[in-house]
Order: sequence, then C-alpha cells, then structure tokens
Amino acid sequence: MTAFQEIAGNVVAAQGFTAAATHCGIKPSEARDLLLIRSDVRAAAAATLTTNRFRAAPTYVTQQAVADGFAQAIVANSGNANCATGSQGRENAQRMAAAAAAAAGVRQEDVVVGSTGSIGVQLPIERIEEGIRQLGAALGRDDPDSIPTGIMTTDRWPKQIAVEFEVDGVPVRLGAICKGAGMICPQMATMLCFLTSDLAIAPPVLQGCLRRAVGLSFNCISVDGDMSTNDTVAILANGLAGNVPIEADDDARLPVFQAALDHCTWEMARQIVANGEGMTKVLVVRVTGAATYEEAHAVARRVGNYLEVKAAVFWEQFNWGRICAAAGSAGVSFDPALVTIHFAGTKVWERGEPVAFDRPQAEAALKAHELEIAVDLGSGSHAATAWACDLSPEYVQLNKV
Amino acid sequence: MTAFQEIAGNVVAAQGFTAAATHCGIKPSEARDLLLIRSDVRAAAAATLTTNRFRAAPTYVTQQAVADGFAQAIVANSGNANCATGSQGRENAQRMAAAAAAAAGVRQEDVVVGSTGSIGVQLPIERIEEGIRQLGAALGRDDPDSIPTGIMTTDRWPKQIAVEFEVDGVPVRLGAICKGAGMICPQMATMLCFLTSDLAIAPPVLQGCLRRAVGLSFNCISVDGDMSTNDTVAILANGLAGNVPIEADDDARLPVFQAALDHCTWEMARQIVANGEGMTKVLVVRVTGAATYEEAHAVARRVGNYLEVKAAVFWEQFNWGRICAAAGSAGVSFDPALVTIHFAGTKVWERGEPVAFDRPQAEAALKAHELEIAVDLGSGSHAATAWACDLSPEYVQLNKV
Repeated sequence: MTAFQEIAGNVVAAQGFTAAATHCGIKPSEARDLLLIRSDVRAAAAATLTTNRFRAAPTYVTQQAVADGFAQAIVANSGNANCATGSQGRENAQRMAAAAAAAAGVRQEDVVVGSTGSIGVQLPIERIEEGIRQLGAALGRDDPDSIPTGIMTTDRWPKQIAVEFEVDGVPVRLGAICKGAGMICPQMATMLCFLTSDLAIAPPVLQGCLRRAVGLSFNCISVDGDMSTNDTVAILANGLAGNVPIEADDDARLPVFQAALDHCTWEMARQIVANGEGMTKVLVVRVTGAATYEEAHAVARRVGNYLEVKAAVFWEQFNWGRICAAAGSAGVSFDPALVTIHFAGTKVWERGEPVAFDRPQAEAALKAHELEIAVDLGSGSHAATAWACDLSPEYVQLNKV
Repeated sequence: MTAFQEIAGNVVAAQGFTAAATHCGIKPSEARDLLLIRSDVRAAAAATLTTNRFRAAPTYVTQQAVADGFAQAIVANSGNANCATGSQGRENAQRMAAAAAAAAGVRQEDVVVGSTGSIGVQLPIERIEEGIRQLGAALGRDDPDSIPTGIMTTDRWPKQIAVEFEVDGVPVRLGAICKGAGMICPQMATMLCFLTSDLAIAPPVLQGCLRRAVGLSFNCISVDGDMSTNDTVAILANGLAGNVPIEADDDARLPVFQAALDHCTWEMARQIVANGEGMTKVLVVRVTGAATYEEAHAVARRVGNYLEVKAAVFWEQFNWGRICAAAGSAGVSFDPALVTIHFAGTKVWERGEPVAFDRPQAEAALKAHELEIAVDLGSGSHAATAWACDLSPEYVQLNKV
C-alpha cells in the first residue's frame, strides 16, 4: 500500500511537466514572485479551495478551470493575494490566466491561477503579464530547485517533495510544491500547494483522492485558527506514465496512489507547521474513542488552537488542566467520566479522575521539540490527529510588518 | 425604560443581604480568597453556567441549588478552580456548600458555590471550611468595598456595581460583583459574577431576565476565544423591597428591571475586557444587516477573535483586508458583493468593491484607545456587537506564571 519512494524533485518530476519561476516586480526585494507550470498535454485536474466567504479572485478562476475535470497550466504569484480587490481584481485574475495561456500555448480555460500575499491591494498586472511572457520562454530551462521559490512569502525554506511508485508495471511520479508559514503571516493569505503527476486517472476519481488527502493533511494543521482567503490545493495528472487509466473509486490500483498523495500532502502540511514564525515546538494532538470522525477532528483542532495550551507548551509548563478546558469547549458532547488524557507521555486524567504522577519527570518530558497530547473520549471508535505549534511572544512581535 | 441610577455598593446594596470576605490560605499571598453572601430570607435564584464539557465541580452544585428556583447563600473562592478534580473535587464542592449552610444558617440545598483559579489541583478543604466558619461570624461587619476582592485572581481592580430603580413606587436595588481578567489567565478558570436584588420576582421570570442579560454582555465579549470551565453568573432576588411580585414575562414592570440588570452585567463584562492583561485597546465589532441574530453574533465574535485583526490593532496598522478574511471565515454564508465595512471610521469596502481612502487620516484614527469595526452584511435586519481587545506581545509573556 505504501510502495512508493521519495525521489528528488518537485512538480517537474513527472513526465511532461515543465516549470519556471522569476522575479517580475511584485515584491520590493529581488526575490522570485511568479511561477508557471505547464503540462505537455491536457491533464485530469482537481482542486480544493478555501471556504472563506471573502475568497480571493484567483480561486474563482481556478474553480472554473477545473470544473470540467481538466487543466493544463498553473500560474501563481506571491507578494499579493489579489483578494478584496473587487471587479478589477477579478479582471486581473483573468488577465493572468490569459497571459499564461498565451505563454504556455494552452487554452485560457485550462489555466489554474493562484495568488498569495497582501490583501486589499491591486496587482501590478502589466509587470505580471510581462513576467509570464518571459516564463513561457524559460519553461524547462529553469533549475528545478528554484521552482518552489516562486510562491514563497514568509516561508523560511522552499517546500517541495516528489515520490515514485508503480502502476501496471510502469513507473509513475507525483510531485508537489507548497507555500505557507505556520504562524500568522502579516497580510499573507496563506497557503498554496500545487501537485503534478503523470498518472492516468479519471477526473472524478482524482478529485476524491485529493479531497481525502487534504482532509488528512492541510485540514489537520492548526496554527492560529485563522482561515485564509486564498487557500488552494490543485493537482494535474496528465497520464503520460502510460498506465491503463484508473477510472473507478474501487480500482485496486488506487491505494498506492492515494498513499503517495497522502504522503506528499502530509509532508507539505508538516513543513508548514514546522516553518511557523516564532514557533519553538510541534504539538501533535491525537484524539481517539470519538463517536464520529467529525467529533474527533473538532476536539483535536480545538486543543491545537487553544491559546492557553499553546502558551503552556511554549513555557514548558505542565498545566494539564488546560487540556481538559480546551477539549471541553470543542462543542462536542462527551462525558469526562469516560475520558483519558495523556500529556507528553504522562497520564493525567483517567475516566473521571485526575491521576497522580511524578511531576519532575512529567515536566522534563516537555523539553522535547515535539509533544503529544492524547485524548481518548471513551465514546466510540473514531480518531483524528491535529498538528499545531506553540505560541511564543514572538508570535505578535513578528507581525509588525 | 432606563429609569435606574447607579449608586455606591455591590451585592450588599439591596435590603437583606450581608457578605464578608477573608484570606483562608488558598492563595500563597495574603490576598483574600474566600467570600460568603447571605440573604436574610430565601430568594428567587437563577444561574447561567459554562457549556464546557469539563465543568468544574462547583457548577454542578450551583445547578442543583437553583434547580427549584430558590437559594439563600453564595460561597466562592479564588486561587483554585476545583476543576478536573474528580470525585474528591465533587465532595469538596459539597463540603463548601455544607460549611456555608452551617455558617449562614441556611439549608445546604440553598447554597450557590463558585470557584476560580488553578485547574487540576485539589482544594485545601479544611482551611476553606475554617474560613467559611469565620465568615459566618463576620457577615455584615465587613467593609462593603472589600467584598469583591474575595474572588479576584489576576484582576487588576475589584469589579462591582449597584443600581437603584422603582417598582410599584418602592425603591429596588440590584448589585453585582464580578471576577475576570480579559486575557488568558494562567490556569485561571475564568469569570464569576454574582448579583443580588431585593426585587420580588418569580424564579422563571428571573431566569429569563438573566439569560437575556448574559446574552448581551458576557456572551458578547471575546478576548482569546478560550472558554472557561468555571464560568458562572448567579443572581438572588429576595423580594424584601416589598413590590408586588413580578410573575409574568409580559409584566409591564419588567423592562425597568431588565434594563438595570442589562446595565450591571454589561458594566461587569466591559470591565473584564478593559482589565485584559497586556491589552492596550478596546475593539468594538458591530455587525448589522444579518439574516439572523445568530449570524450577526457569529461574524462579530469571529472578527473580535481573529488574531491577525487583533495584532493589526495593537500595531496600529491599517490592514483592513484582515477584517474581510475574518468575517469571511465565520461560517456564515453571506455575499461579499452586498457587504460594507468601516474600520475606525473609514469606509474600506462597499458592496463588492474596495473603497479609496486617505491613508494617513485612516491610520491616524487607529491611535484611539477604542476602535470600532462595522460590518454590514447587506442580507437582513439583524445586528450584534462584540467587544474584544488587541493582542500584544505581552499576551504570552504574561502567561509564564
């Protein structure tokens, strides 16, 4: 099931994909701020988009582009989110798609568009159009490692991954790049992830795979509880690997792809948390024994987002009671008399009663970089995990920009 | 309707109420940590309690005490929340009620119990019982201004209020004390408010009045989005003012009491926000034009809790786009094309389009101590307001204790 292996590379690892990134002048620095990815042929396409009601203009273009299940190019910029920009913003997002279509030689309706950066500022669209023209000429000539830098904002490192696995005896590749810094990003609207594969797969099946992978990765990380206006995860699968197309959800060849996809999205999500500005520790919240997955997920996210818990973790203080208060406020109806809680390996609450523990030993465990909080609700068989980080004084300090 | 006036005093302002506070040894300092309030006669009683699933032991005692609509005494301690303390904690809460009943000469079933402070630590119950005995002897002899200090934790000042109004030509008094510091309180579980009145009123009518008042006050303040395990608002109304009892929700004499009650609970809630540790500004979020009150309330609270918005306010930066992102993530289905947003008096978004504004003037307005964010959803006639505060680097620093 997990018969995939990591390889070097990113969105250009799979056959038939080329990409390029450049600095077109959105960012005041010399840093790259524009990215173009192209598939040699039309590809099955799927996307998951933010549920924020103030969605950025490019998310509408992307939704339209993948509506028929196919796309062929991705254009994205950093430094400006093109959000809360009204009718001019919508026009600019279309102009990005049109410029990318011309530069990549594909239909405008097949272009996925992503933007990330400041909210409420109009794009410098002429500079972007000129940059896209240059990227069209540079496709395939760029150093692959420079590709993910095109969508970085406050990221401290470029985020990329690629894996290889076999379907029908032929090698298939899947790669990804991602942008997102785990903490509040000043005006930065927040995460983009683009994936490419040469797998042959029908669009509805691909959409299901992506939805599951996102549910287990990006939807499970919680940093500050804020929800971005631009969050976009998009995948293109162009079929050039040559496998017999996967056309049904119960195809026996699907699990290996799902496992590879889950691995890539999870690794990208993990890096977003690890990249958190001001963060010093990773917090893994595992909830078991829930009546439903939704309830497990709600409790896990609530604990991961609870500021008192995050501050306690930063200060390495064994305030286990805050975990109770957090779990109890998730809006999930459980009975504390059935609950068991472990904090960094120490059992602190068992079925309605606090548990005596060795405090020096418990506190010593808080020195670790990654801490686990385990909450068993004792009410069922469903489980969920949330990944979060601690809350440091730098959290606010770093948001002055 | 608002024919009430503020007077000096608190929970001993109304006829037939006595109280006393002392230091019994829960807090390591010499500060007061125990409080007893007594009514000369059984009083109509009502309470609203936290919805946290990990409710503190005393909240169960209070729920039971007011279940029949009557109570006669309130005992409360600070320094220890008696939460996540299991069966021993439940027994200790009952022992507090029993000690208060003996000290005040009332039935144990008529004692409201409140605790606030550290979570997951057992009460020093013998010291508390001894303290309650002393308070019984001190009832009525204490300086009224010392009463609210008995439930202070990280509060920077005692919180109290009293008002007077007329019903049936007789003067009626209503007073309150409250505990709560607007920011994360280290391990402190978080707000208690006790009110007393000599109004004659039937318990079901009193419960309705309290529910409405809490909905417009404590339920409208948002500081860090955390929800305490101990939150308790309780009221006793003993009828000694001598008015003809108010026994129906449509009684024409009810609005003056409701207005007085709303004023007291709101003033206590306002002081909780103003007391926020590390806070420098008050943020008033007014949402109008919502399809329902619940939707208006959800958007207002979400904006008030959105960390990017709170950080922007602290830094006095005019990042209006964050307000869009916050409102859009409230889980309320509105159309940005119908929305109008003002930030500190400047219109920034109007019916789907950003609005040009004078930036120096807009930024200058952020220097004020109290800032208003107004969001009109353009979808209906319902409105709600949330009161919040900003987020400063001290926020985390102050939580090291």
